[in-house]
Amino acid sequence: MNVYDILAAKRDGKELTAEEIAFFVRGITDGIIPDYQASAWLMAVYLRGMSARETLDLTLAMRDSGLRVDLSDLPNGPALDKHSTGGVGDKTTLVVVPILAAAGVPILKMSGRGLGFSGGTVDKLESIPGFRTYLTIAEAKAQVHRIGAALIAQSDELAPADKILYALRDVTATIESVPLIASSIMSKKLAAGASRILLDVKVGRGAFMKTRAQAEELARTLIAIGNGAGVPTSALLTAMDEPLGACVGNALEVAEALEALRPATARGKGSPLAPATARFRSLCVGLAAHGLAAVGKASNQEEGRALAERTLDSGAAAEKFAEIVAAQGGPSGGLEAIAAALPVAPIRFAVRSEAGGVVAGLDAEAVGRLAMAMGAGRAVKGDTIDPAVGIVLRRKVGDLAAPGEELAVLHLRAAESAEAFAAQLRAAYTILLEGTVPVPPLLLAALD
Amino acid sequence: MNVYDILAAKRDGKELTAEEIAFFVRGITDGIIPDYQASAWLMAVYLRGMSARETLDLTLAMRDSGLRVDLSDLPNGPALDKHSTGGVGDKTTLVVVPILAAAGVPILKMSGRGLGFSGGTVDKLESIPGFRTYLTIAEAKAQVHRIGAALIAQSDELAPADKILYALRDVTATIESVPLIASSIMSKKLAAGASRILLDVKVGRGAFMKTRAQAEELARTLIAIGNGAGVPTSALLTAMDEPLGACVGNALEVAEALEALRPATARGKGSPLAPATARFRSLCVGLAAHGLAAVGKASNQEEGRALAERTLDSGAAAEKFAEIVAAQGGPSGGLEAIAAALPVAPIRFAVRSEAGGVVAGLDAEAVGRLAMAMGAGRAVKGDTIDPAVGIVLRRKVGDLAAPGEELAVLHLRAAESAEAFAAQLRAAYTILLEGTVPVPPLLLAALD
Repeated sequence: MNVYDILAAKRDGKELTAEEIAFFVRGITDGIIPDYQASAWLMAVYLRGMSARETLDLTLAMRDSGLRVDLSDLPNGPALDKHSTGGVGDKTTLVVVPILAAAGVPILKMSGRGLGFSGGTVDKLESIPGFRTYLTIAEAKAQVHRIGAALIAQSDELAPADKILYALRDVTATIESVPLIASSIMSKKLAAGASRILLDVKVGRGAFMKTRAQAEELARTLIAIGNGAGVPTSALLTAMDEPLGACVGNALEVAEALEALRPATARGKGSPLAPATARFRSLCVGLAAHGLAAVGKASNQEEGRALAERTLDSGAAAEKFAEIVAAQGGPSGGLEAIAAALPVAPIRFAVRSEAGGVVAGLDAEAVGRLAMAMGAGRAVKGDTIDPAVGIVLRRKVGDLAAPGEELAVLHLRAAESAEAFAAQLRAAYTILLEGTVPVPPLLLAALD
Repeated sequence: MNVYDILAAKRDGKELTAEEIAFFVRGITDGIIPDYQASAWLMAVYLRGMSARETLDLTLAMRDSGLRVDLSDLPNGPALDKHSTGGVGDKTTLVVVPILAAAGVPILKMSGRGLGFSGGTVDKLESIPGFRTYLTIAEAKAQVHRIGAALIAQSDELAPADKILYALRDVTATIESVPLIASSIMSKKLAAGASRILLDVKVGRGAFMKTRAQAEELARTLIAIGNGAGVPTSALLTAMDEPLGACVGNALEVAEALEALRPATARGKGSPLAPATARFRSLCVGLAAHGLAAVGKASNQEEGRALAERTLDSGAAAEKFAEIVAAQGGPSGGLEAIAAALPVAPIRFAVRSEAGGVVAGLDAEAVGRLAMAMGAGRAVKGDTIDPAVGIVLRRKVGDLAAPGEELAVLHLRAAESAEAFAAQLRAAYTILLEGTVPVPPLLLAALD
């Protein structure tokens, strides 16, 4: 077996054997296969595709390229993992994980950082002063034993082959390939050791998958891999045409998650749950319901929803989140203490509607790019981010905005570029002078 | 303009602009574009192809990546260049260049080394003791001024971008792409400064182009590039199903070339011109005739053939070759002195026909691989070669071989593997027990 023949076979559209794929992934991991051969192979895979069998074998080889976490000894098993394919304003992990943990489902959740227009859960968590995302696997497992959940940064020891290939894909225009995306996601999830996986596949202008058909193809590929690897996997398709919820930007998104976690008794006091945040909260309940049904804590979706709502209403989910934050070095003292500790940007700049009308569209990718330009995200890896800056969206699709009314508020570090940022945000809105636009659903489909 | 967008465009099958191609080639030459991006691009080009315009622009960008030789001041111009796409037993340069130079066509001929089953003219020349192939361009030009021809190794200063890309293609399974092959060949030829180019495109089992259609496509692409670059270019398609001539192996091929150069008065004496060598000589006359017509030394092919034959018969071509060899450090004293100086392998081993019959096929690639295994060629760059070893083919396609008669003689350094090599050579022959097989033509078509 040699690299050249593997390259030539994929170039010619042939199916690689499991042994060839394992040989290739081992060679990449060990540094024996140089990156120029790996990148030619990636382009060949991009253009020639991979069969379901090859995609599963690639995933398993990458899963096996590094550490595999063993969660079989967790209490209250089976452990569930939840993964979102990423978008703008996506802070669901911060709400779904506490709901599930409060309902007795153990979760060791690993997350990534933001890149480009897309945010990352680790950046959001790190906007909470003191919050440590770099726990060792042993520390994280001990925490799951103790309080049922841990929210940590993806360990470099998991699926190192994926890390190498992803870095190459990023610079060789080979990101948008379903077999490569799917194997990248699932190799890390499978190495993370959960016995059930729930996927949140985003679809729309602010997602990697722009169309429903693409998202379904990816979801079905992810599910086939999970099930093929012996880990029952299901997926929800959820909308990412406009940003999720009202807030985009790290500390602002944590604040919105805290709002959504607020127990029934505390709602309406302080900052009331705005419509966009209410819809975000409902999506979290839907995701949690699927997770609860997947691990057998609920016998169907309705039961799952009811159980999830109870953990929110009772304050159990809020307490669980506060417990996680305190355990990982953040403020102790509950949601109010966390909210009070979040960094705040010094400048607020209102973006007002000009002609007025009804919001027919709000380009999530454009909003994500704006947030990145404002300092909330990274153009390239290693860029530093400002946790306090971001955008609070006052009007979303379906909402009316009279002339001069606030569309959004920019939270800025400095006033200089405020007008330019405001113009960019206005350009992301599509506003019709008259007519009505229905509020688009967030949960589009459930697949398993 | 950036590399990523260029990669993405070619990946998606779009046509790159001249500016994009020039940017890319400059980036590769300067080392700014890393090899992992170059190799992903090569795979995309391999799978997506290139338009005629892109292929010309790629060639021009590679031509311009290094030194461009100026031959406009040569006497007796215009200067002609001749290039073979390579095969097994191809020593035509050693005969065609002296014919052309003897007929007053100035030639500064650069050649390459052998790799894999295919030989290289530089290796053949270096089997002549003392022969220096590494002249500077200035030395080579001075020699062309003085004696009309120089035979030198390809300078590293010409088309360095091609050198970089070729090395990557070699390890990324992206060799066999017509736009990449054509731009590689023509960038070096155009940088070498000739004002007319004659191409010898080999077709068959021992050539890179296995079919007539592939070879024609390559030839037409090469011609379009040359003409597009303002250098009138024509091509001959010649057969490479069985090895060319009787000898394969460096010193043996020089000996065969000397035989073919022998003047009329010396033929029949010493080693007589065997049928295979006679056919090889006739091909050289055909190639030279096209070259002479291309530069206007002959008004048509017949005149060109007659002129070429006169330079051979009169001994002018032989004298010219002896003059080149002496000028470049080899033996002075004519063909006999050169022949006497050639290294000789200590072992000769006859390969005999078993059942007997008529030779219907002789796999040139298999013979080339055998010669390589015997030490005459390189499996990988940097391998050392043994100039003395090789194969003398006594029977070629169309010839009869009675049981026990010699098919060929192996010239070996050591006796150990003789039987195994003989078995390999016998396997390269296809012998029919009865019937007749016509002697295949060598010159298949002329294109311009």
